[in-house]
Order: sequence, then C-alpha cells, then structure tokens
Amino acid sequence: MSTSCPLPRAENERVLLGHGAGGRLTAELLASTVLPATGGPRGPLEDAALVPGCPDLVLSTDGFVVSPLFFPGGDIGSLAVHGTVNDLAMRGAEPVALSVALLLEEGLELAELEAVLASLGKAAQEVGVPVITGDTKVVGRGAADKVFITTTGVGRRLPGLSVSAAAARPGDAVLLSGPLGLHGTTVLSTREGLGFEADIASDTRPLHRLVAALAGLGDAVHVLRDPTRGGLAAALNEIAQDSRVRVEFDEGALPVPEPVAAACDILGLDVLHVANEGCMVVFVAADAADAALAALRSLPEGGGAVRLGEVTAADGHPGRVVMRTAVGARRVVDMPLGEQLPRIC
Amino acid sequence: MSTSCPLPRAENERVLLGHGAGGRLTAELLASTVLPATGGPRGPLEDAALVPGCPDLVLSTDGFVVSPLFFPGGDIGSLAVHGTVNDLAMRGAEPVALSVALLLEEGLELAELEAVLASLGKAAQEVGVPVITGDTKVVGRGAADKVFITTTGVGRRLPGLSVSAAAARPGDAVLLSGPLGLHGTTVLSTREGLGFEADIASDTRPLHRLVAALAGLGDAVHVLRDPTRGGLAAALNEIAQDSRVRVEFDEGALPVPEPVAAACDILGLDVLHVANEGCMVVFVAADAADAALAALRSLPEGGGAVRLGEVTAADGHPGRVVMRTAVGARRVVDMPLGEQLPRIC
Repeated sequence: MSTSCPLPRAENERVLLGHGAGGRLTAELLASTVLPATGGPRGPLEDAALVPGCPDLVLSTDGFVVSPLFFPGGDIGSLAVHGTVNDLAMRGAEPVALSVALLLEEGLELAELEAVLASLGKAAQEVGVPVITGDTKVVGRGAADKVFITTTGVGRRLPGLSVSAAAARPGDAVLLSGPLGLHGTTVLSTREGLGFEADIASDTRPLHRLVAALAGLGDAVHVLRDPTRGGLAAALNEIAQDSRVRVEFDEGALPVPEPVAAACDILGLDVLHVANEGCMVVFVAADAADAALAALRSLPEGGGAVRLGEVTAADGHPGRVVMRTAVGARRVVDMPLGEQLPRIC
Repeated sequence: MSTSCPLPRAENERVLLGHGAGGRLTAELLASTVLPATGGPRGPLEDAALVPGCPDLVLSTDGFVVSPLFFPGGDIGSLAVHGTVNDLAMRGAEPVALSVALLLEEGLELAELEAVLASLGKAAQEVGVPVITGDTKVVGRGAADKVFITTTGVGRRLPGLSVSAAAARPGDAVLLSGPLGLHGTTVLSTREGLGFEADIASDTRPLHRLVAALAGLGDAVHVLRDPTRGGLAAALNEIAQDSRVRVEFDEGALPVPEPVAAACDILGLDVLHVANEGCMVVFVAADAADAALAALRSLPEGGGAVRLGEVTAADGHPGRVVMRTAVGARRVVDMPLGEQLPRIC
C-alpha cells in the first residue's frame, strides 16, 4: 500500500484499532512510525518485497488475528496460508516455502489448535507449498486471544511477469477476478451472530493459479492486487496513487452477491471497504483485456471475472478513484479511514 | 530442537505456558500436533530451514512476546532482530533480509511503539540486514499485551560451513562463546522488580560475526546452536539426541557471572535452564578446538569463549548429557520440562 499525508500527531498518541485496518490510519502509522524506524522502502509498498541479491525471489509476511477462528468457508489456518500465498502471487510469484509462527493463549483447547493446524496443513498441501519452519510461543491467559498466526512466504517470480502497484498506465483495463464482499461480511456476521452467515461464505482461496494463467500475457499485465483489508476502495486508491493515474469504474459492473448487498445495507457497510480473500484486481493493457478475462475465466476461481473500468490520465488529480454510478453520476471513492471492521483477517 | 516421546494426552488437553518454553512440553506439542498437521520435517528441527530449490538459502521465523518490553541490555525490538539473525547464523548463514510482523494492542502508547521500532531498526542496521517487508495488525484492548513481534529472516549459507544439530561426532570439543544466564535472569528480575537488574544486563546481541569467524575452519565445525529458551540444557540435549551421541561437560567450566549465580540461587533457578540471547555452543573436531576458540576470542562478543567438554560415544544411551560436578560426581542433565520462565523472549 502507499503512504498518505500524515494525520496530525495529537490524534495519534495511542494505537487505535484503525491503525491495523489497512486504510488511511494504517498508511499514516507506517509513514510516521514504522518505515522511518526500520528504513523501509520509500517507493510503493508492494504486497511482497524483492529479496536483495536474489533477483527472482520475493518475501511476504502477514499476521492473522481473525475472530472468530472458524467461519463459513474457512478459518484462521487456511486464511494464513491463502493470505501469504496471495501476497506472493500479487508480485507475480509462485509460492516456494512458508514459515508459520504460532502465538497461543494459555488455556486454548488443544482440539481447537489441532483443527486450525489441520486446516492450515491442508491449505498448504492444496497449494503445493511446504511449511519448512516455524515457531510456537505461549502467553498467559488474557495476554492474547486464543491463536494468532504469522505466516511468511518465499516466492519465485514467474518468468515474463513484471507487476507493480506503480505500473498502471492510462488506457489499462481494470479487471476483477471474482465476487466482492464475501469474506468481510461472513466474518462479521459470524462474529456478531447476525444470521447472514447462513447464506454466504468467505471467498478465502489461493490466487496463484490465476496469476500463473495470466503469465502468458507477459508485459501486458501491469498490476495485480488482492483487495483484502480496506477492500476494493483501498486497493484501487493505492494503485492510483502509486501509479499517479486516475481509475474509473462502473458501479453496475461490481459483482456483489445478493446476500452481501443485503448485509451491507443492514449493517451500513460500503461494500467497497469490505475485505476479500479470494479475488484480485488486474490492470492490463487494453488490447490484452479480453485475453486476460478469458485466462481468468478458464479456472474455477476466476469464473466470475469481470471488467470493472479503466485507467485514465491523472488530469491534475493523480491518485483519484471515481465510480460511475447506476444513474450516471460520478462519485469519488476515497481511501477508507480504517476503523470499520477490526480482526477480519 | 528434537522431538521427544509424547506425554500422555490427558495431561495436555489445553495449551500450557510450558508448551511455549522450549523444553519437553514444546517438543511434545510439536511432535503430537504441529508437525503432523503441517507436514513438517521428520529429521532434526534446526534453527533455520533450507529453502527448497535454493541450495544456499535458509529461512527462519521467531515470535517475540517478552515481558517487559524494555529491560537492561535490550528490548523486544533488538531481541526480535538478534533472535532471528542468530537462528540463521546457527545454520551457518549470514543474514540477507528480514520481515517484521507487528501485532499491537489497541491503546498502546505510540511513543512506546516508536521506541521499540527505533531499537529494532538500529539493531538491523548494526547487523547490516535490511527490513524489506512487514505487516501491522491491531487487536482490541485485552486481546494482546502491548506488542508482539514476529521476525522472519532469509539467510545465505557461508561457503565451507555445513552445520547441523545431527552432525556432532564422538571426540568433538564442545565450546561456549560467552557467559551464561544473563538474559533470562535479567528479564525475570526486571519483570518482578527483584533488584538483580541493577547488576546484570541481557546478553542480547547478534552472533553472525562469530559464525563468520569460524567459517575458515570449514568442515571441522559440526554444530552451532544458541541456547535460548530452555537454556544450555535444552540445546545440549537436542544436539545429543539428534546426533545420537553423549555429551559431557565440566560444571567448573561454565562461565556463570556472579550476579547470575546469586539470582539463580535465590530464585531457585538452574542456570542450565535459563535463556541466553548472545552466546552459542560450538561442536568442533578436537584438533580444530584451539583454532575455534581463538577465532571466537578474536571478536568482542566471543571474548569469554571457553571449552566446556566433549562428545563421547553413546554407549547404549544416545542423547544423554552429563555434567561433571566440582566434587567429581556425574549428574545427568535432563531436557527441562518447560514451565520455568514464561515470556522470556
């Protein structure tokens, strides 16, 4: 993700839930505190980083704190594999190896831990990525909430693909590989017992095969990003900012399942802000858009791929994301602030 | 670490603090639950794993949950760098890149976070390893304790070194690079306000330069291990088990600083079980022992290096560790069970 203008310091004397939500507050914390201290990159923050001295290898790490641990369609174990595999994939890389660091709360039922780990192991096996190392820490009751998992992945970049959040170009078509809003609404509904979870399930799944299917298009593929925390709004804003372009898309093209729309209506959520774990946006040269859509749709996980819109020149407003509404109006889609949905991944 | 005989299941229906302490309970949890689910290695568990398809690269991950965050000699930030750099070094690798995953509790003072990250950044800079990627999650008040950090390191194996916990051979000399017991006693004393912390400081520091200094000895260096959780007792037991040998050492050779000995006496701790973060054991062919000691002592962090003992044939008891006491008796040094010192790293 990219860094945005810091908020005034006085608002930020303590860590807020929104600092972890993937929106403006997260960007502010990274820009003001994390990156200056760790000497992090000044350029765009990608989902995975190149390993110095190893030109084809990338590294990505992700902490998982989802609550509840189990939800329709997945659990923290499968999510921890998919999330990191997908971050590697968004740099055009296939997964080579995973590490798994467990942080456990004293008193956790071992049966619950076993179920999480069985799911994690199954997800890794389905992806074909070995878990090669790990770590287990335990803290006292009340010092953590059951299980937190940090997975780190090493990936190898697919030959021919060279994608970056800074590589969108005017004229690019903007594609989305699958339905929107399923993960966030499912987890929230399960956590709060709202009842929608009977009709929906998280979309958590690995995206590396979709990326491999796009590899044949080579340089025509410019940007890949999975709209997780902060949703589609955050993903598009980050890309528009990092590439200094404007992104326009049609509200009517958004693939929002009916139960997701109903849940968002009742909960007052903007589906553009809801986290996803099984779809990605693809920015591709216009003349390769049909081929890219066909490649995505050739796999089950891309069966619902659609064209959302296109990139235009910045026209004095680089970084702007605009939605064309059903009635023909244009609405600016801002970066979410960040406090909407804690512990969604 | 190696896996030991599982304890009966009935004792283990919930996660205990000792499951994270690096002793027998940790080994049991790994053997019974973690490794079967994740398809982990059946051989010895090394501090860092080889990356498939990348013969010179290793990967290691470690979660840090130390309490308090700051203690004499270090803090969770520097510890998170040193711990992972040292795990890479124990596979004979120099650090190439780090990832940092932060898990923050809502309400944490930003000034405290900034101090932790400044220390982390400084430690990484001193080692010369870039932090190339990261992640930040926030959970609600009471769902974590201030800051947990998971660091993952990619390392490149130094040419000539080929070390493994399974490579100890009868006749090897057993060396220790520095004083024993400083980290664990310092953290415990600080946490509990016992007063020893005025006289001692954690030994937290990177060991990669010591390992580089040993690289010239090549194949004569058989095993490297830093005695962190579980202390020297766990490290030697793991090596003895994985190599199917017997290890003997002299109690009188243990470099235990006076304040550490006093703290252990009063607290009822066995210094052999106390965690260290700045020393390592080296198993080296007998005829290279003097050269190895000289190499260690050539650097400030190895200035206190000593010879502890030697490896002997198993004689029907593979995996046994024996201490020759000051009065000439022999005491079997067991793997610690694990509940002694929670949240020490």
